[in-house]
Formats: sequence, structure tokens, C-alpha cells
Amino acid sequence: MSTFDETTTVQSGKELFIKMVISNWELQNTRLNSLLEKLSDERIAEETAPGRNAGIYILGHLAAVSDGMLPLLGLGERKYPELDKLFLTSPDKAGQEYPTPGQLRLYWSDINETLSSRFSQMEPSEWFEKHTSISEEDFAKEPHRNKLNILINRTNHQSYHFGQLIYLK
Amino acid sequence: MSTFDETTTVQSGKELFIKMVISNWELQNTRLNSLLEKLSDERIAEETAPGRNAGIYILGHLAAVSDGMLPLLGLGERKYPELDKLFLTSPDKAGQEYPTPGQLRLYWSDINETLSSRFSQMEPSEWFEKHTSISEEDFAKEPHRNKLNILINRTNHQSYHFGQLIYLK
Repeated sequence: MSTFDETTTVQSGKELFIKMVISNWELQNTRLNSLLEKLSDERIAEETAPGRNAGIYILGHLAAVSDGMLPLLGLGERKYPELDKLFLTSPDKAGQEYPTPGQLRLYWSDINETLSSRFSQMEPSEWFEKHTSISEEDFAKEPHRNKLNILINRTNHQSYHFGQLIYLK
Repeated sequence: MSTFDETTTVQSGKELFIKMVISNWELQNTRLNSLLEKLSDERIAEETAPGRNAGIYILGHLAAVSDGMLPLLGLGERKYPELDKLFLTSPDKAGQEYPTPGQLRLYWSDINETLSSRFSQMEPSEWFEKHTSISEEDFAKEPHRNKLNILINRTNHQSYHFGQLIYLK
């Protein structure tokens, strides 16, 4: 096999992994967006099960976590940093005033469109770089803790909460 | 870069990616097993939310789906094919008699130990082969639909249902 062929293999191998991970993330977004279209704003404000997190809290939480991927993956500043205080560092029903379901729907779409657009501009090799929350030293020992691993992890996190949001249907 | 170095890069790239995917699957298993340890058999038999699937149904469903990965990934025969009729092709509360929570806990451990052991014996390149439910023709067009993609997808599926099982806590 020539050097050219092997370089092509490296490239297409990396691109294939990235495609697998991004496709699975997009699949989760499609499923969640399809559910959100079916739910009224009133329904989103309700609890997913008696005494459990409301739909609006979970949606805000997912928006905050996805928005947090922008700096974590080195893709830019947070767009909605104010979500953290409401949906990450505080539990639901802590007496804070939430954005309306309508506002959160818009934030959610905007965050995902921004991420999709930034992902499409990334070079394949960038995905295998360290993310911004791991030290150089730890990354040298654990090179699988790269940017692509963050997206795998966040996709699972989203699936977990989607399993709860579906109880609003 | 020499041919040797590039071959090494291909290999380590694949191995790194496989490690990322398997680590995320193991993380989900660890989380679910930790929850199962905390739940009594009586609690597992209850509904995860009013009118929703019981814990036992979700556990049986996850066991059936994971067991199904054995033939799908070319790793051997199903160990518990009888689970499908109860937990895949029938909804919960269809009047069928389920195994006890104790039995299902054992099946679940056995299936995951079997999968872990088979995964550890796989060559990295095997993960990028087609799985047994896609045609040669479709796989040629969509090479990301390989065995590793199945594991990414099943890990998300498990996260989705774990988000529901946690409501038993």
C-alpha cells in the first residue's frame, strides 16, 4: 500500500468515526425536536412524573449542557450562560423564575443550529484534540478523553433525559 | 512519515475510538448496576411513573436488546431468546408472566459479562465490519453502519431507559 493510500485510510477512518458520533447526536436531536413539536407550552411546564423534574426544567438543563459544549470544544463563547444558575447549579422548583417554554424552544434550536454549523467547520483531527476541561498531563495519559468523547457522552446524557421527557406525551 | 508510522496511526486511531465507545457503554452499565443494587425486587416490579412501564419490563427490555447484540455483532447465539416475546414484541401489562426480578438481575449480569468478554476478544478491525442486519449493498453505501455504530446506538437506548428507571429511586 502506498503512503498516499494509507494517509487516505487514516483520514477516512477518522471521518467515519466522526460521522458515526455526529449522526447519533443528530438522531437524538431529531427525536427530541419531534417530541417538542407535539407538546404544548402548558404541557412542557408540567412534571414528567409526580414530584419529578418538570419538562421545562429538563429542557433548560439540556439547553445549558449543550450550550456549554461551545467553550468546552473550543468553538466559541456560551450563548446563554444565564441558563446555568437556573438549570445546572439549582434543582427544579427552587423558586427561580424560568424563561417561558417558548423562549426555551428558541434557545434550544439556536444552540443546536450553532453547534451543527460549528461542527461542520471542524477539521477531523480537531475532534481528537483535548477538550478545555482536561489538563495536558491527564490528556497525555488518557487520550480517549478528547472532544469527540464529549459529544458521545453528551448524546447519552440527552438520551437519558429524553427518556423522561417522553413521559409528557 | 514512514509507512510504519502511518500504519500505527491507523491502528491506534481505531483502538482509541473503540475504547471511547466501549468506555461509554461500560459507564452506562455501571450506573444501571449501581441503581439496581439500591432497588428491592418489590420496587423493581412497580411502575416507573403512573401508567408507565414497570421497572421489571424496562429491565427485561434492556436485557433482550443487549442479548440481541450477540448475533447482531456476530458474537454467537442468543442466550435468552425467550425475552423477546415478553419484552420486545409485547408491551408491558399484556398479561404475560415475567421472570422474577431476581432472575432478570442474573440474566442481565450474565449478558453483560458475556458481551464484555466477547468484546475483549474482538480485533479492532472487526468493529468496522458490517453487522448482520444490513445488506452488503447498503453497507457499501453507508459504511458508518458498522458494528461499533450498533454499540453507540444501543448505549443511547440504554441511557434513555435508565432515565426512566431512575424514577424508581
